[in-house]
Amino acid sequence: MRTALVVAISASLSLAVPAQDVVRHSTPGSDFPIARAVEVPANATTVYLSGAVPSVVDTTADRATFAAYGDMETQTVSVLTSIEKTLADLDLTMGDVIKMQAFLVAPDGEQLDFEGFMKGYTQFFGTAEQPNLPSRSVMTVAGLVSPGWLVEIEVTAVRP
Amino acid sequence: MRTALVVAISASLSLAVPAQDVVRHSTPGSDFPIARAVEVPANATTVYLSGAVPSVVDTTADRATFAAYGDMETQTVSVLTSIEKTLADLDLTMGDVIKMQAFLVAPDGEQLDFEGFMKGYTQFFGTAEQPNLPSRSVMTVAGLVSPGWLVEIEVTAVRP
Amino acid sequence: MRTALVVAISASLSLAVPAQDVVRHSTPGSDFPIARAVEVPANATTVYLSGAVPSVVDTTADRATFAAYGDMETQTVSVLTSIEKTLADLDLTMGDVIKMQAFLVAPDGEQLDFEGFMKGYTQFFGTAEQPNLPSRSVMTVAGLVSPGWLVEIEVTAVRP
Repeated sequence: MRTALVVAISASLSLAVPAQDVVRHSTPGSDFPIARAVEVPANATTVYLSGAVPSVVDTTADRATFAAYGDMETQTVSVLTSIEKTLADLDLTMGDVIKMQAFLVAPDGEQLDFEGFMKGYTQFFGTAEQPNLPSRSVMTVAGLVSPGWLVEIEVTAVRP
Repeated sequence: MRTALVVAISASLSLAVPAQDVVRHSTPGSDFPIARAVEVPANATTVYLSGAVPSVVDTTADRATFAAYGDMETQTVSVLTSIEKTLADLDLTMGDVIKMQAFLVAPDGEQLDFEGFMKGYTQFFGTAEQPNLPSRSVMTVAGLVSPGWLVEIEVTAVRP
Repeated sequence: MRTALVVAISASLSLAVPAQDVVRHSTPGSDFPIARAVEVPANATTVYLSGAVPSVVDTTADRATFAAYGDMETQTVSVLTSIEKTLADLDLTMGDVIKMQAFLVAPDGEQLDFEGFMKGYTQFFGTAEQPNLPSRSVMTVAGLVSPGWLVEIEVTAVRP
């Protein structure tokens, strides 16, 4: 009888605690490709990734210079490709990203290349193939660990 | 019999998994209006908001200047009012905020106006009407996406 | 009968919802002492700490100068000791930290002392006694609230 009870209970548990979805709230009246807020249900597994940094694109250049890692768009694509790879290794995709912080660098005396950052970002988020948008904060920092880096991106994902 | 079992189980589930509260730990010996740490129980729904930025207060001023958005206190109140509005749209309040990061700008050659930031912050947190305090980190960044912004604030809330 | 059912259900619940562990993913081919990603199960209690800052080490020095708080390694050890103390007060340890953000300052005209930061960090993470590694992002900010601070660290922990 006890065994029968446990079986019945296990069956009912999946009824009582159904899987809940991540809810991505958009900003009213805006088509800017970020979520206004992302709501993560209690039954979610959360995966916190370390900040990802760009790869060298020109091995002949001094690694302490931006030339070694490319311009802002190049570095953004490099960083997001690295994140996509990490997520894939964990059986996750860019569509599972719920939160992003982007730490950008403006070289001395130059304005921040936010447009270059967005050109990279929009290749991965808000596309027909991958419409899911994260909540996001972006700031210009004084620098990153390597003087050749223009961008570091930290994301959090939720296992679907 | 199976139906009766499921009903009994549903009743017992709410007994077995009671709603748990967010716990806000204060700093011993300090009345600084932030939590030392905030503890979020496993059964919480977490809502991650994008970084919020200030609104224009002087439409005649150049939007690339601080004059368009006001001083630090004005911009902080503007950003927190925007966050309060977003939370309200999601049926949440400032009392549900559990974590905050503030990214502040010190104009070239000037000191950070931390006092102005706190004057804005304390209108929303640690008041008689809204005593709940978030955990918080504050830093001076090199800049934000618009050169007119002095402050961007990112918060995380928990659905009560 | 109802009472008996509830007892049986409570017993089965702990079978049906076993405690799940935090999973720390390392970076393939790297021994750098951070996790590539940390996975937090749904049944975890998450504890968000406020950014921690250094303590004065030289009370005779002007508090608006780095001399009052010491060099990067000294300040990093001071901040992490403060975090360890906060965690202990909450019945947690450094081994429960799952995420870290470090906001570092490079004094005017000087390079960031990342080596000094790592010398402090590796006294607390990745040791024989405390092998658990957090996900981590590090950036150089333009400044912190006090002009004497070289480092502020924010961590998130999970209650074991």
